[in-house]
Amino acid sequence: MERKSLIKEKASSYIKKNLSRYIDLLRELVSIPSVSAYAKDEMRKCSEYISDVLREKGFKTEIVSGGGHPAVLAEIGRGSRTILIYNHYDVQPPDPLDQWSSNPFQLDIRGEHLVGRGVADNKGNIVARIAAIDSIYEHIDELGLRIKMFIEGEEEIGSPTLEKIVEMRREWLKADGGFWETGYLRRDGRLGISLGFKGMLYIELIIRGASRDVHSGNAPLIPNPVWRMARLLTYLKREDRSILVPGFYDDIDQDFIRESEEIIRELDYEELEEMKSELGLKEFVRGLKGLEALRELYTRPSLNVSGLYSGYTGRGSKTIVPSTAGVKIDIRPVPGQDPKKIFDKLKEYLERLGFTDIEYIIHSSYPAGYTKINEKIVRKSVEAAEEVYKKPPVITPLSAGSGPIYLFTNILRIPMTGAGVGYYGSRAHAPDENIRINDFINGVRHVAYTLINFSLD
Amino acid sequence: MERKSLIKEKASSYIKKNLSRYIDLLRELVSIPSVSAYAKDEMRKCSEYISDVLREKGFKTEIVSGGGHPAVLAEIGRGSRTILIYNHYDVQPPDPLDQWSSNPFQLDIRGEHLVGRGVADNKGNIVARIAAIDSIYEHIDELGLRIKMFIEGEEEIGSPTLEKIVEMRREWLKADGGFWETGYLRRDGRLGISLGFKGMLYIELIIRGASRDVHSGNAPLIPNPVWRMARLLTYLKREDRSILVPGFYDDIDQDFIRESEEIIRELDYEELEEMKSELGLKEFVRGLKGLEALRELYTRPSLNVSGLYSGYTGRGSKTIVPSTAGVKIDIRPVPGQDPKKIFDKLKEYLERLGFTDIEYIIHSSYPAGYTKINEKIVRKSVEAAEEVYKKPPVITPLSAGSGPIYLFTNILRIPMTGAGVGYYGSRAHAPDENIRINDFINGVRHVAYTLINFSLD
Repeated sequence: MERKSLIKEKASSYIKKNLSRYIDLLRELVSIPSVSAYAKDEMRKCSEYISDVLREKGFKTEIVSGGGHPAVLAEIGRGSRTILIYNHYDVQPPDPLDQWSSNPFQLDIRGEHLVGRGVADNKGNIVARIAAIDSIYEHIDELGLRIKMFIEGEEEIGSPTLEKIVEMRREWLKADGGFWETGYLRRDGRLGISLGFKGMLYIELIIRGASRDVHSGNAPLIPNPVWRMARLLTYLKREDRSILVPGFYDDIDQDFIRESEEIIRELDYEELEEMKSELGLKEFVRGLKGLEALRELYTRPSLNVSGLYSGYTGRGSKTIVPSTAGVKIDIRPVPGQDPKKIFDKLKEYLERLGFTDIEYIIHSSYPAGYTKINEKIVRKSVEAAEEVYKKPPVITPLSAGSGPIYLFTNILRIPMTGAGVGYYGSRAHAPDENIRINDFINGVRHVAYTLINFSLD
Repeated sequence: MERKSLIKEKASSYIKKNLSRYIDLLRELVSIPSVSAYAKDEMRKCSEYISDVLREKGFKTEIVSGGGHPAVLAEIGRGSRTILIYNHYDVQPPDPLDQWSSNPFQLDIRGEHLVGRGVADNKGNIVARIAAIDSIYEHIDELGLRIKMFIEGEEEIGSPTLEKIVEMRREWLKADGGFWETGYLRRDGRLGISLGFKGMLYIELIIRGASRDVHSGNAPLIPNPVWRMARLLTYLKREDRSILVPGFYDDIDQDFIRESEEIIRELDYEELEEMKSELGLKEFVRGLKGLEALRELYTRPSLNVSGLYSGYTGRGSKTIVPSTAGVKIDIRPVPGQDPKKIFDKLKEYLERLGFTDIEYIIHSSYPAGYTKINEKIVRKSVEAAEEVYKKPPVITPLSAGSGPIYLFTNILRIPMTGAGVGYYGSRAHAPDENIRINDFINGVRHVAYTLINFSLD
């Protein structure tokens, strides 16, 4: 058996033998409620815990803060091939709590499922990366590897200080390739790998009327911001169709579009049909289907309303003219687009339409980032996926979601690939978030195999 | 001194001497949290308490239920002139609790102010009516009076079973004139008397998309009900201007409009200007002012959005395509208009525009009702107001608010007048609801004087 296969064999049997140790580690991590949206002490505790675990394994570790929740930086090996592993230890709020079948911050083993907040997003992946490194521990020098783990604590709130941390540790972060945080196994047993993520421009627009809510007997006289808000929304987009903001589709990276087109033509439409029926939809917007639907999903910027509010929204009735109407809008730029420019265009457009008194709150703003399909790290990760899952992975040009990957792909110029222990039923961000034990084992093997393939070829 | 003046003199000194007893009674009533929106036992307790108090005073009392919260019916005197006094013992929820300076269900005496939920709306008026009757107790036979008190428990939730109760006790309720629940003293020291109330059609419209909220990465494909809701709203009304529903202004009682025009011409615009500056508004909708503003406010039907909701409306950001968008609309018809017809017109209009899948919830629906200015009860109440407040009252054709007065004015054909112990700063429905002690005394005198004037002329 050749050297490469031997090391893989060893890594594979290592994780099977030591599985319970890593489930214990995951249990410890889940038990720290590191909800970046409101926790503070728990964030420090979680980062220190991870740092301690890695230090005991022989990593050089450091905890760095850019003014927000701290990030853990850890390094092992002295080889000439550097791999950067990005993850985050923060999690989404567990709400709605009453929809969980068990305590979200207590790992619950139900048959082959591990249930708890963060098991899929992203603590399970942190543990899988650590296990993968452990499984090739004795070969790190032989593989010529230097492995860096970068584990931030603000991903779920838009990574507000990540750019600062990246600037602070720019030299340290340099690498030849890297793993992004996430990857999911599909229903057909194939691993989904995204080559990148859309960006995010999450803004809240507020329109004000009177200085306080007023008894709606006075409605004939008092300006109600709802009517202006309704008009504003119809100017942005008409019933889920193309976005009306002039220049919204400008600056899209045409290389990205060309490459994406090739990738998309390889995809099947099964998951789209499943999504449609699961959500009780007769059809998607504009009757989109097949290739055209995939193009929209994976290569085009989007503008969505995530929330809309004004006045009394409780049960029953209350009669007021609301003083305020607000809308939460998430825009996802694609490669080439600058969210700041899009914001300026939106604002200018609305001002031209007479909306000169809008209050804007920018909750997060970062561009898209992606890795070309022919980068070595991607090719080696694809090979590893075929070896582990016995089926070729499904590659999408971008994830349907967003992530601050641009700091790594665009700024640091590190090609990144995806990998992860989640599956189609993982319910990330939702109650009863879970992973399957066998997917966890395969996730560890996939990372280990990718490292081996990357090093020895 | 003539007989009439003597009885008034006595009534007036009675309330001044016995004030503390009535403040104690108000304290007892305020301490029962009779919030019709969610209380149950407290509703029964409050109705029984009032019934007991009245029975001890010699009233024949009865508690009647139409399936909802009970109403108290009480009667005293055997004369040929019957007066019906309508009030309600239920109150609005005390929320937001943190904005109260004291416990809302514990009467707080602060200088000349009595603070607590319901003191203005409407428990203070119940006590004032009782005090007024007590103050002329020995003269009820002499005045030829038969006085009926009708105190319901569902006014703050749209009086859903009032019509049923009125039908059940139709004979009992017959009267020559009556008092409605409310009246407020203006900044200029003049009593505001409304000749009626607008009706109410409070409806909630819900538009649905996918069967659950979806990660907004999928926004390019998933129908978002917000966009349709925005369009729907622009079809109803454009930025607080005229309502676009065809036939919305049909059927308005032209006698009412003619009479209202005469009344409105007598009004000053001071309160409008005060409202504008208090609310920080440069101008009212459409730049309305003066007579035109008064016409809109007091004689025209309105359509207002009291609440609008979709998706995530908490702090910060969450990225979803919402499954639902809802709007709470309050429509206030004027005399002559049928809220059921208006609802049908609205629905038909929206269906014609393609909104065939809207879910409609009707929270309340009743028409307007009013009393002509030359009815005896109104004239006598105006005279009494001049005597008590030393200034002529300010009469408006309708209150800016709504109330189920039509059951009395339209169905039972009882002319009703307004009276009350509140003032411009009473904050009905809001935190720190309060009345002033001197207004309370005058409110008692005004009711007593009206009864005397009505009987002896």
